[in-house]
Amino acid sequence: MSDRGTPIAERRSDEGMSKVARSDYSSVLERHLEALGAPATLPAVVCGMAGSRQGWQEARYLTIPAPLKDIVNRAVQVTGTRRDIRILPGLAQRDAARADVMRGEETQLLGALKDADQACLACLPGTHSKWARFMDGHISGFSSHMTGELFGLLATQSILRHAVGAGGNFDPADANFVDAVCEGFNHPAEITRMLFSLRASQLLFDRPQISGYARLSGLLIGCEIASARIEFAVPDLIHLIASGKLAGLYQSAFSALDMAVVPVDADAAVVAGLVIAARQYWPLSDRQDEMERMKS
Amino acid sequence: MSDRGTPIAERRSDEGMSKVARSDYSSVLERHLEALGAPATLPAVVCGMAGSRQGWQEARYLTIPAPLKDIVNRAVQVTGTRRDIRILPGLAQRDAARADVMRGEETQLLGALKDADQACLACLPGTHSKWARFMDGHISGFSSHMTGELFGLLATQSILRHAVGAGGNFDPADANFVDAVCEGFNHPAEITRMLFSLRASQLLFDRPQISGYARLSGLLIGCEIASARIEFAVPDLIHLIASGKLAGLYQSAFSALDMAVVPVDADAAVVAGLVIAARQYWPLSDRQDEMERMKS
Repeated sequence: MSDRGTPIAERRSDEGMSKVARSDYSSVLERHLEALGAPATLPAVVCGMAGSRQGWQEARYLTIPAPLKDIVNRAVQVTGTRRDIRILPGLAQRDAARADVMRGEETQLLGALKDADQACLACLPGTHSKWARFMDGHISGFSSHMTGELFGLLATQSILRHAVGAGGNFDPADANFVDAVCEGFNHPAEITRMLFSLRASQLLFDRPQISGYARLSGLLIGCEIASARIEFAVPDLIHLIASGKLAGLYQSAFSALDMAVVPVDADAAVVAGLVIAARQYWPLSDRQDEMERMKS
Repeated sequence: MSDRGTPIAERRSDEGMSKVARSDYSSVLERHLEALGAPATLPAVVCGMAGSRQGWQEARYLTIPAPLKDIVNRAVQVTGTRRDIRILPGLAQRDAARADVMRGEETQLLGALKDADQACLACLPGTHSKWARFMDGHISGFSSHMTGELFGLLATQSILRHAVGAGGNFDPADANFVDAVCEGFNHPAEITRMLFSLRASQLLFDRPQISGYARLSGLLIGCEIASARIEFAVPDLIHLIASGKLAGLYQSAFSALDMAVVPVDADAAVVAGLVIAARQYWPLSDRQDEMERMKS
């Protein structure tokens, strides 16, 4: 990280909780830092599943409502490592009727909402899309939606695979997608019927599979937005925290529904969140030496 | 079949469309009939996927609204066989916004509603549950719901598998199931959220997996019933055409929602439907000889 909070170097890998044993987290991190030429004294901030009970070291969920800044304050320091490593906690909504958890997205919220001075809603699309309400510096409520996982299962494992084929790319402005977003949004309570109807449409009207793929995506995203609208009072402002293809699809969906959004890049948001935490743990002046060494 | 329309003999196998090539349908049927000692002149009525385009011989969908008796009148006779074999058509709802198809369930409807003298609704739970409206001797509308398939995929392939475990049996009166039916029925538009919440509940409140299994089943069934209630004017009478475990679950669900149902055994309904067709094609007097031979 430069002193402006922008990345000096980046490494990505798929070595997540499902692939790394508890005892191997440290060596995985060290290997990546070494490849970047990071000094042994450089500290690290970690977010996501590494903080889960089955991860590296548990960073217990912060119960909401919680101040955004508590995500930084309530990190745990990893024990048994020479390096100073902090793991940020996830968030939990401990309401029996609306139980919910997140890990990783809270750091995106931290980065994306750092300058927010009014109540707003954030939408973070994904395998398990998250919606969060932000008010008076607090995360006051959130929900997770199985949109992405449902899409993947239905498109590849269910009878709908015959209606969507191998899928592929479609334009976010494609009418099949946009119309289905509106149908899902207007009739979310009929999703079990609308899903099967995708298959029947294709049988009866010889619809091309790519249109079925776009429609499946649209129906599920429309349903998710409808559910969030029921749950949260819709504020003037929705921060759409997304990257890549999902960003385009959700922007198109919100536009079709006449809902205004502020787009925020999800990758930039997580970096911004980690920087906020790092700056608090290790004020800039203390770390100038390490950074100079990395840059050189 | 006896002259009273009750089965003299029965054979079951899993040799359906997914396992049998078009050219093999005849030999599969002959093998089963031979095992029963059926004479070569005994005719046969077939329903289900054998009549699909990829099946034995296409029995084109009957477009609804259609008189129930047209299911019998519009059967196709299989060509190229010595035996007289008729395949009953499925039903299609050729409405672009509510496209739907069924094959097999129409024969259950035929058998279950043969004496119905008033408008009613039929619910046929399954992998793709069907709901059909019957009025003035016609099937006037129907819909399919992916309830059973969604349950199977979510319970075994999704993150919810951690919340439901290997599943197992639960009592249809189990409060986890009944409460979830009511939640699904009252908040069907929030299904994407409620599904993920199952996983979060288990993480936060250490719920046992068997309760997650019952809740997943209840949420999806509640959602399906809510969707059907939106689609169809709820009449005084719902015929629940189901067998085995599903019959118990749906009866419990309807009871929890204070909706009265007439239970109809699904296996008996399909036999009754086939008998109605057989009686019309081959009046009883003509077939007395063959039946006597089978009984002896």
